[in-house]
Amino acid sequence: MKIALAQLNYHIGNFEINIQKIINAANEARLLGAELIVFAELAVSGYPPRDFLEFDDFIDRCQDAVSTIALKCGNIAIIVGVPIRNHAEKGKPLFNAAAFISDGKVQYFKKALLPNYDVFDEYRYFEPSSEFEVLHFKGKKIALTVCEDLWNIGNDPLYTVNPMDELMKSQPDFMINIAASPFDYRQAKARTEVLKKNVEKYEIPLIYVNHVGAQTELLFDGGSMVISSGNQIVTQLSFFKEEMQMIDTDALMNEIFAENTMKVHSEIELIHDALVMGIKNYFEKLGFSKAVLGLSGGIDSAVTMVLAARALGAENVLGVLMPSQYSSDHSVADALQLALNLGSPYKTIPIKKLYESFENQLETEFKDLPFGIAEENIQARIRGVLLMALSNKFGHIVLNTSNKSEAAVGYGTLYGDMNGGLSVLGDVYKTRVFELANYINKDNEVIPFNTITKPPSAELRPNQKDSDSLPDYEILDQILYQYIECRKGPKELIALGLDEKIINRVLKLVNTNEYKRHQTPPILRITPKAFGMGRRMPIVARYLS
Amino acid sequence: MKIALAQLNYHIGNFEINIQKIINAANEARLLGAELIVFAELAVSGYPPRDFLEFDDFIDRCQDAVSTIALKCGNIAIIVGVPIRNHAEKGKPLFNAAAFISDGKVQYFKKALLPNYDVFDEYRYFEPSSEFEVLHFKGKKIALTVCEDLWNIGNDPLYTVNPMDELMKSQPDFMINIAASPFDYRQAKARTEVLKKNVEKYEIPLIYVNHVGAQTELLFDGGSMVISSGNQIVTQLSFFKEEMQMIDTDALMNEIFAENTMKVHSEIELIHDALVMGIKNYFEKLGFSKAVLGLSGGIDSAVTMVLAARALGAENVLGVLMPSQYSSDHSVADALQLALNLGSPYKTIPIKKLYESFENQLETEFKDLPFGIAEENIQARIRGVLLMALSNKFGHIVLNTSNKSEAAVGYGTLYGDMNGGLSVLGDVYKTRVFELANYINKDNEVIPFNTITKPPSAELRPNQKDSDSLPDYEILDQILYQYIECRKGPKELIALGLDEKIINRVLKLVNTNEYKRHQTPPILRITPKAFGMGRRMPIVARYLS
Repeated sequence: MKIALAQLNYHIGNFEINIQKIINAANEARLLGAELIVFAELAVSGYPPRDFLEFDDFIDRCQDAVSTIALKCGNIAIIVGVPIRNHAEKGKPLFNAAAFISDGKVQYFKKALLPNYDVFDEYRYFEPSSEFEVLHFKGKKIALTVCEDLWNIGNDPLYTVNPMDELMKSQPDFMINIAASPFDYRQAKARTEVLKKNVEKYEIPLIYVNHVGAQTELLFDGGSMVISSGNQIVTQLSFFKEEMQMIDTDALMNEIFAENTMKVHSEIELIHDALVMGIKNYFEKLGFSKAVLGLSGGIDSAVTMVLAARALGAENVLGVLMPSQYSSDHSVADALQLALNLGSPYKTIPIKKLYESFENQLETEFKDLPFGIAEENIQARIRGVLLMALSNKFGHIVLNTSNKSEAAVGYGTLYGDMNGGLSVLGDVYKTRVFELANYINKDNEVIPFNTITKPPSAELRPNQKDSDSLPDYEILDQILYQYIECRKGPKELIALGLDEKIINRVLKLVNTNEYKRHQTPPILRITPKAFGMGRRMPIVARYLS
Repeated sequence: MKIALAQLNYHIGNFEINIQKIINAANEARLLGAELIVFAELAVSGYPPRDFLEFDDFIDRCQDAVSTIALKCGNIAIIVGVPIRNHAEKGKPLFNAAAFISDGKVQYFKKALLPNYDVFDEYRYFEPSSEFEVLHFKGKKIALTVCEDLWNIGNDPLYTVNPMDELMKSQPDFMINIAASPFDYRQAKARTEVLKKNVEKYEIPLIYVNHVGAQTELLFDGGSMVISSGNQIVTQLSFFKEEMQMIDTDALMNEIFAENTMKVHSEIELIHDALVMGIKNYFEKLGFSKAVLGLSGGIDSAVTMVLAARALGAENVLGVLMPSQYSSDHSVADALQLALNLGSPYKTIPIKKLYESFENQLETEFKDLPFGIAEENIQARIRGVLLMALSNKFGHIVLNTSNKSEAAVGYGTLYGDMNGGLSVLGDVYKTRVFELANYINKDNEVIPFNTITKPPSAELRPNQKDSDSLPDYEILDQILYQYIECRKGPKELIALGLDEKIINRVLKLVNTNEYKRHQTPPILRITPKAFGMGRRMPIVARYLS
């Protein structure tokens, strides 16, 4: 049987576009001789539709979309993800289903394992299925499952059932899994391992179709694949690109394949590509083309600017230099050099006079109190007002340039440099930002060397350095990684050989700055635990703080 | 059996305080002759602990807390909520349990129904229990359940099991339910109905213990109660206050009671009291005592200021007047009058010069472009910078004064008047804000009449009125309520007799302003569907927009 794998970039709630993409791909696949085409999980609505799923009107439109697809694609069978209603008397109102559309008829196969951790909230909307039937098509029996249904296969099973164990009772010929498996820098490897464990256990081939493209913070990397019954990857679709490929399942089951070894992407390459896609899709899907950001001469804004230039075109990214009396000469020079290297537009708007206006206006209130956080923040906030003024006047989206280390410990000014429509580096630790800068510079000096080599500084008071108030980033990032990604507590961190005093200080900073992160822009997610929708912390709490 | 109901205000992750409160109440109850004292769901950790539950260290501390309580409270039995580990090979790592502590021994009764909708994420952490055993204590059989376990009793059951149906097989003498049931203006009524339905169905008395106090956005109203087997409320604890009461269960089962009619609180009274408690607890639990807010002379800032004054003491709430060239005389006069009526401190910091500084600094960029949103927002953002400067210098928390109608349609300036540590009115529609103002003024004119009667205006350009760019609030709020609280789509709204053009405009505004709401402060939740943790929408989407 000739099957097409369609790895596409959907837009949440944009039914017109999603339906058109599905119909176009189906027609193209049919012309190429495919008998069946497979699309991703909840492709019709885009993933994740979140609380739109609570609107009857939204579910109606999903149903209408399936009808339209069934009507328009007569000569090819289709598997596509869609939310459907649960008509039983009890349980959640919806199922997360794979629709099998053939000859104008629709059959549904419902997801049994509902991820409800990190960024996933599927139990919020869906009832888990407890029916396990194979799909019969052209004499073959297909075990059709949805994403998580294949993931209960490790040593620490999260669910008490295993859908494939049930489906194997009907002796299927092969598996099809439709997925919405978002990127993090470990996920491509983890995903391949899980899929191969399934083929190893069930000894039948697997066809796996994932999403590609960004949905606000979630970055779908694609990497759809076909695994033979001999447990070799026969073919894999690209990362970060829409693509369609054909496979003949008969061949799959009879022949022995050499492993179709994928080009091994380094973590930093994956992160780079993911962030570029994240920016690109955020702008495209919102209908914007131009970005603006503050250029400090530091490494965070430099890396953000390069990634934005690669996503949107250098000409569409405006760098704004906003020097103060505390800005060093090299800051201005480095920032300028970056804009010149990229060929991007830039502007210089000094903040000294604006800062003095605030000083004067607040003189009665502040009297002789010493210079402190308030004065530092006023500078950062003036810059925030200027960037937003340009954004409001000329239609740019402001890019936030904070990194994950800063966001973690609250080293940033709310309503100042924490502003933005999108945070590009908010899930990238400072030490990784340096790696990214070096990766960007691998062929030539895009980011000025001085930006990379000088000690990080916020330049909000004379001769300020990040190291005045924070531990070295090497140490800080290690503690943050263990606490945030690995959920290690103080005792476990001490057991890792880290300094107790520094640990307690860092954990206190992380926990007492939850209120700041509550108000930050969406953050492109590249790790297994990013700030934002996947990490939900109380603000008013007293734990490790 | 003499049982004490302890309705207390816990602090998430503040084990020291929570344990001390529990031990003190247990000792007090023992002295009053109680044999058993009942505390609320997850009282040990505070509710909701959210992702702290993913930390082994946090769960260890919960376990230690139970050990400490068991050790310190020898002569009284205790029922208290605590997260415990799931030692089975499969399933989520935790259970949400009720610990029964007696004579130093601990027995656990696990929650079966896990709410995972609106503000609830319990399936994120917990495995649902499928064991149903009654608690044996002093010759009685007690059906001990946790919150949601009693809520699957309506016409549209969300779960496929019903814990009490199972427990009834053991013929319990009465029910005890420990809860974490947050306030909304309908919840006290809904809760009483659900509890009474249980007593009606199972025909045994019910002892119900709820949380009281605010945890950031969630407001727990208390209202714990005892219902006799004859389905009469025998006693009910206060709303919004810590309290302990004793009940004799023998009496409960043998006598016929007159319904202990509660004072019926009006919705607006409940909302008022809930918001005051929300502000009070937010400050107390964060260790702050002073608030600052911008006073525009308008109704939103006036109502916010009164509520804050009632929560924190008038002397602790600083009102800041920040008039611009577009501010009317009456704005300044009304704002001043409010501060005087309350006896609160106030300051006047004009923004005209600051605005001119920005105009000058941006002259090269803005050239001859007409006055627009950019210029309006600069004014709002200057005010934001000033309030934050005072907050940073003197240790106030900035109170946000936006109402739900504005937040819904994006009628507010991000990083300007949308700033704040806490949004007091973000779940209160504008029409309700007027109700609140009138309720506040029921005995005397706290809020100047002119503030209530004049047409709402942002005063960011000459003679601006809200009605220039928004439908009348009566119409707007009706559409918003139907869309946000009731999840009605366009067709259903039209069927309600609302104007199609206005509907489409409003829904588009709501959906395209998701990005703004993503960055707003936590909002005190007083309706069944508040912006924030209970309403999760994609930002980059194209639905009704």
